[in-house]
Amino acid sequence: MPLDADAATVITGFRAGPPFIEGLVRDLRVRWAFEEIGRGYRVELFDAMAARPEGYSEWQPFGQVPAFADDRVRMFETGAMLLYLGEQDERLLPREPQAKWTAASWAFAALNSVEPFIAPLLFTNVVHKDEAWAGPAREAFLGHARRRLGQVEAALGQGEWLAGGFSLADILMVTVLRQLDRTGELAAFPALADYKARGEARPAFGRALADHLAGFDGAAA
Amino acid sequence: MPLDADAATVITGFRAGPPFIEGLVRDLRVRWAFEEIGRGYRVELFDAMAARPEGYSEWQPFGQVPAFADDRVRMFETGAMLLYLGEQDERLLPREPQAKWTAASWAFAALNSVEPFIAPLLFTNVVHKDEAWAGPAREAFLGHARRRLGQVEAALGQGEWLAGGFSLADILMVTVLRQLDRTGELAAFPALADYKARGEARPAFGRALADHLAGFDGAAA
Repeated sequence: MPLDADAATVITGFRAGPPFIEGLVRDLRVRWAFEEIGRGYRVELFDAMAARPEGYSEWQPFGQVPAFADDRVRMFETGAMLLYLGEQDERLLPREPQAKWTAASWAFAALNSVEPFIAPLLFTNVVHKDEAWAGPAREAFLGHARRRLGQVEAALGQGEWLAGGFSLADILMVTVLRQLDRTGELAAFPALADYKARGEARPAFGRALADHLAGFDGAAA
Repeated sequence: MPLDADAATVITGFRAGPPFIEGLVRDLRVRWAFEEIGRGYRVELFDAMAARPEGYSEWQPFGQVPAFADDRVRMFETGAMLLYLGEQDERLLPREPQAKWTAASWAFAALNSVEPFIAPLLFTNVVHKDEAWAGPAREAFLGHARRRLGQVEAALGQGEWLAGGFSLADILMVTVLRQLDRTGELAAFPALADYKARGEARPAFGRALADHLAGFDGAAA
């Protein structure tokens, strides 16, 4: 059970916020990584809609969660956090050079070639959903997102994970794909839906999600 | 002069494409990194609008440029390429742990917290510009982008570079900010505009841009 009140490792998360964010906030990525390697950590939880603690922007310049700190470094951006943990544990990032850089390529792909095509849907489906332009914009952005999803599905092929064995790339891609859950879009990409389900079936993911969700009702606050 | 026909290191780029992509295609990022460390490389150039060479999707699953290969590994995603080069040369990625992970945090921030807020503008300003929804969508996305730009400007403060000394994070952030060149948006963020100009004034950037642009008129093809 990596949640450990005495751990030197800490991440930030949300204890409250709009309901649609539960299960999707990015602390889930780091919790999942901690669970995969059995590393204990503490959490500092905020209300998503309230002002951040004094000085938080020096830790996380965008006011987001998670931020990360341990007894060596502090940082922001889940990609950097996972890479940091991966350098310390080959269960997240393999050591053989080609395997390592294939995993790194897919990690960046999740964050820079797939998520940016899904993120605009948050704006058309949630933030601006009542504005007249949101409907046609949604269709246009969905078209671009579908092309990327098809490319990821083709690259996955018959593979179980993106880079051979399970790696940090899968933590990032599966959590990116979860952002489509409420859209039903993955139904058209059965191999990708199976891949996401495979990630979500990992015991480490289940424990991470449970702790992530428990944070929202105050149990971990 | 890192362009070297006999180099074992190769990246892909475009020799032709729609005019708006010149100066913005992401091979510029990797060329800039090569120039900063004096590493020789070859280029394989494609027509952006033509079919990719047979098998290219196994190297670059999205059919994009650049892809990268040397005598050890092949990979895709400019973030991964710069990290790979940074692991080999501290002029791109410092070795002291906090400095390294601050640079890594900003590298991921450029790609996952800033670029995804600028990328939708490509769709509203270019791809879908003649569709009725593009105007109001543009205003909405600009609002979100401006908030992120203000946060980066605040984090930069009086600093010269994002993570202390110049690093791969600056290569990524400056090339991301260049995507706003035709919008005039940076005028409202003078410190950020100065930062971008500082990056573009580096001799390594100038050489990389010249070679990138020369590729389009066939000189390097």
